[in-house]
Amino acid sequence: MTVHDNFYLALIHHPVYDKNGVIIASAVSNLDLHDISRAAKTYGVRAFYIVTPLEDQRRLVERIVSHWTEGAGGDYNPDRRDALELIRVAASLEDVRDEIVRNGGGVPATVVTDAKPHPRSISYDAMREMIKGEHPYLLLFGTAWGMTPEYIDQSDHVLAPIMGHSGYNHLSVRSAAAIILDRLFGRDTLDL
Amino acid sequence: MTVHDNFYLALIHHPVYDKNGVIIASAVSNLDLHDISRAAKTYGVRAFYIVTPLEDQRRLVERIVSHWTEGAGGDYNPDRRDALELIRVAASLEDVRDEIVRNGGGVPATVVTDAKPHPRSISYDAMREMIKGEHPYLLLFGTAWGMTPEYIDQSDHVLAPIMGHSGYNHLSVRSAAAIILDRLFGRDTLDL
Repeated sequence: MTVHDNFYLALIHHPVYDKNGVIIASAVSNLDLHDISRAAKTYGVRAFYIVTPLEDQRRLVERIVSHWTEGAGGDYNPDRRDALELIRVAASLEDVRDEIVRNGGGVPATVVTDAKPHPRSISYDAMREMIKGEHPYLLLFGTAWGMTPEYIDQSDHVLAPIMGHSGYNHLSVRSAAAIILDRLFGRDTLDL
Repeated sequence: MTVHDNFYLALIHHPVYDKNGVIIASAVSNLDLHDISRAAKTYGVRAFYIVTPLEDQRRLVERIVSHWTEGAGGDYNPDRRDALELIRVAASLEDVRDEIVRNGGGVPATVVTDAKPHPRSISYDAMREMIKGEHPYLLLFGTAWGMTPEYIDQSDHVLAPIMGHSGYNHLSVRSAAAIILDRLFGRDTLDL
């Protein structure tokens, strides 16, 4: 069982755009918690942060997670418990950074993922090389219609968008997170 | 805009196991329709079949799809319309095969995906090679606790399970479909 002790995910609910280009704090989606934590567990991520400044939303996440990790859900489905145990709640990216620093290894480098190309976009090959060492990395996913450019600009790195062959780039954040983890950590299993 | 004219997906709701090993027809999940059709559109799949013998479930799918393709949903979010337009409804795998045959190109070869290894498992490399020609392929995903062994045995091919590094193999079918399409058709986008 390999765990990438220095690799973290964060799902950002503010500042993101709504459909009309207004900056909002998006609502947490229960499905995001389940699907992304299961992918995080599959690929051995250390922790998965749900980041929102809204206190009621943070409490909601804590209630969902405790249902599956401590409550009836964990007895009903232990596999789900193993995944949701990776979830942490934070009010801001600064709080996430502080907690990772307390885990040791230094200040994590942040890597933004976005559906649009960016002048600083790096390839998946480049990112696989970059994360090979001991330094902690924190991969950020936006919700709703994506993170603001200012927020993206503050990130240490920007990962290239996932493009298929069709020109259509409207994957759910759940699908994007799964694909990106597989590109970074996956392998063709007959080789195992 | 590249479309893989001979590549199809099907989401199988019967015969699958429930949590207790009983064979059931599982309920259709709205999120499966949205997430998997968006991934199918991204990677240029020709059509995405929702397969269930339950007539009320087929009608439900048709109602959801028409909301997004013909109704208010399509005006609200045209990107979602473009994805859900790929969805077709079928009562059985035989009906899916018949419809694909009518599209031309012959009887599709079926490829089952499953979370468990199988004696006939082929690698992703092998499958990428296999699907390069003109012959139609139909990739089957199970729901609930997975397809029955008898159903899997009837498939022409079995694709290797997705394994991360952790030994945990409980991805959602939405995540698994996204990852598998990316393994078959994706590429590192800075190379475009």
